[in-house]
Amino acid sequence: MSETSLISSDAVPRGFRFAAVKAGIKPSGKADFAVAVADAPASAAAMFTSNRVQAAPIAVGIRHLERSGGQVRVVAVNAGNANCATGEVGLRAAETVCQAAAAAFHCEGHEVFPSSTGIIGVPLAAEKLVDALPAVQSALRAGAEGLTEFARAILTTDTRAKISHAQFERDGKTVRMAGVCKGAGMIHPQLVASGADHGALHATMLVYLFTDATVAPELLDGYLRGAAEGSFNRISIDGDTSTNDTVLLLASGASEVWVSAGDSAFGAALAEVCTSLAKQIVADGEGVTHVVELQIEGAASNADALKIAKAIAHSSLVKTAWAGCDPNWGRLMAAAGYSGATIDPDQIGIWFGKLPICIRGARTPEYDEYAAHTYLQQHEYTIRMVVGTGPGQCRFWTGDLTAEYVRINAEYST
Amino acid sequence: MSETSLISSDAVPRGFRFAAVKAGIKPSGKADFAVAVADAPASAAAMFTSNRVQAAPIAVGIRHLERSGGQVRVVAVNAGNANCATGEVGLRAAETVCQAAAAAFHCEGHEVFPSSTGIIGVPLAAEKLVDALPAVQSALRAGAEGLTEFARAILTTDTRAKISHAQFERDGKTVRMAGVCKGAGMIHPQLVASGADHGALHATMLVYLFTDATVAPELLDGYLRGAAEGSFNRISIDGDTSTNDTVLLLASGASEVWVSAGDSAFGAALAEVCTSLAKQIVADGEGVTHVVELQIEGAASNADALKIAKAIAHSSLVKTAWAGCDPNWGRLMAAAGYSGATIDPDQIGIWFGKLPICIRGARTPEYDEYAAHTYLQQHEYTIRMVVGTGPGQCRFWTGDLTAEYVRINAEYST
Repeated sequence: MSETSLISSDAVPRGFRFAAVKAGIKPSGKADFAVAVADAPASAAAMFTSNRVQAAPIAVGIRHLERSGGQVRVVAVNAGNANCATGEVGLRAAETVCQAAAAAFHCEGHEVFPSSTGIIGVPLAAEKLVDALPAVQSALRAGAEGLTEFARAILTTDTRAKISHAQFERDGKTVRMAGVCKGAGMIHPQLVASGADHGALHATMLVYLFTDATVAPELLDGYLRGAAEGSFNRISIDGDTSTNDTVLLLASGASEVWVSAGDSAFGAALAEVCTSLAKQIVADGEGVTHVVELQIEGAASNADALKIAKAIAHSSLVKTAWAGCDPNWGRLMAAAGYSGATIDPDQIGIWFGKLPICIRGARTPEYDEYAAHTYLQQHEYTIRMVVGTGPGQCRFWTGDLTAEYVRINAEYST
Repeated sequence: MSETSLISSDAVPRGFRFAAVKAGIKPSGKADFAVAVADAPASAAAMFTSNRVQAAPIAVGIRHLERSGGQVRVVAVNAGNANCATGEVGLRAAETVCQAAAAAFHCEGHEVFPSSTGIIGVPLAAEKLVDALPAVQSALRAGAEGLTEFARAILTTDTRAKISHAQFERDGKTVRMAGVCKGAGMIHPQLVASGADHGALHATMLVYLFTDATVAPELLDGYLRGAAEGSFNRISIDGDTSTNDTVLLLASGASEVWVSAGDSAFGAALAEVCTSLAKQIVADGEGVTHVVELQIEGAASNADALKIAKAIAHSSLVKTAWAGCDPNWGRLMAAAGYSGATIDPDQIGIWFGKLPICIRGARTPEYDEYAAHTYLQQHEYTIRMVVGTGPGQCRFWTGDLTAEYVRINAEYST
């Protein structure tokens, strides 16, 4: 178990207890079953992958939130198996875990929210999770250590646990917010709210956000959508959108501070936590050695700016150039050119940080290849493209494509 | 120069001469300037990248074909520099080469068709190509050796020259067709005819097809579109669509066989040559160790089948699994799920060759992981997905993503 906590207990939202145990799903034998329990029914909002192939726990989670009217008592997350492409058997496995957790924690089955991450297409051994529930019951605790263990148990190919927190004061009371997540590969979340049209595309990213504010479920949903759009829906590691992406926000109300619509302190705290977690996911992406912030400006529309950012973020040639610290800016141009966005190549400008690279579609006279190469040797940097066709803009975070990524994903594991 | 020809001189279309010389564009010092000269103006049809960033030679080539009414005397191809994102200077450089070639070979400037491949964003040293023209003049020759040298000089990261040929007899006369091409990286051609809308997306792929049939330029265009759609527009190595993709088909008429509309023998010969070249490009793709033929069937439409094929062919996770011979079919399901095509996950079936892998969205009862793994160890194999939502289908060729691809493209070369 963890010796060091990644957060102080003072920063952990009140009203929740956490546990992580070894259920035997991960072949490594590490903790693989993370559970959070709300002392009383918590308001819940969730967003899920827009992949049309959805894992069984997503279908079950959506159904449970509908039945409970957005109330959650227990979050039950296993790592090591995604319970996806497992048909009817998979749905029954997810329900079995929820029913057993409900019995263990004295709530309704539909007040249990399940998540799974790991390999796709292999039946989930639900009985191992059910058998681990007594161990979960004895391990549950509030505070930093429990949340840290929860954050570690949900990891797959991640190299480190990811936690972020924020808080604000109101009327002499403290509202706490904290989030944990896992990412690493199959990361290009395209989250939609449950029940929304699945028009968009593309990790398994799992995010659990906890706050002790008091917020009605329908309000919580609006806050979550806004925060996710500018954070989790603005990152990509490999362009593959998972079948299991899930973001869950729970509000326990234990702070006794009511949040209503348009609460800027609450919105800011949520945005801060989500943005930090999103960047942590990129920084810990499979094989990632450079974290790149793309700033696309002057596109015909915000949608066009996002198309350009995604084309760049998904280009194997751009990402391998970054791996080599190679200032091959022509690959950025080519990606913008096939992005589908309206562009005029002769208007495009590119900067690496403050270094001018390309102006009006061609190399700047002052282009300094050595300086550009040196800039790209940094662990984190910014690339700005000014499209020159309108007011559209976006920020997007992504990483390089390295031989290590290939090794991780080409290794035949069974 | 070449010691061995990749084609017999008997198979080389009559009416053309070929040459390749060292102009000093490639840093390696290898032959980098390939020229084909038609004895008399040849009918020409061409298709180009749909990337909105287009190299200077593409803009010049389109303009020349318009001015000449589809007549070409000289094809001038340099490797080592793409002459792309080079602004006005780039356009002047391309024109300079064409004008000098026209003077050398006694034709009009607009009867010269230029192509470039190599690094983007670096000014092309047109004077080196101009200075090399006398050497080209003395090197020109008909037959196998000339065409083989042409095929070698256009290569960049390709490991081998690519030639294909076909012929048919009519009225005691032989119609010959032969094509050469280069590919390797930035390969996901999305070709459109010159002047068409650029609605589609995504190498530098350069393809030169020669025939000694007599075909009017406007007919030639229809034949080329049909053949390219089922071949070059059905391959992807890395999903990056180049700024320089070009396919040029020249008909010298030297066979004295007239081809009119709906000539199935001519169409079949062209399709055979194009399909062979397309597959050769995939097989010689950067770092490719496995060539995969995707057969998508039962999709809602042919367009949907193509969306699924492209999502699979562009998925880093699918391609790295192939590199490891890992039968992780869940990654295929996930890619289909985010492809944007209409699917019902519970209807999807997957076969590796004749091995059933997945049926109705879940692993088949007879799933044999060892057999699946062994199947994927072959150099070439077939993956078939039956979507189960309609009559749509397509074939598509792609390869795996290996650490060698990363090495080639991450190597900082300057």
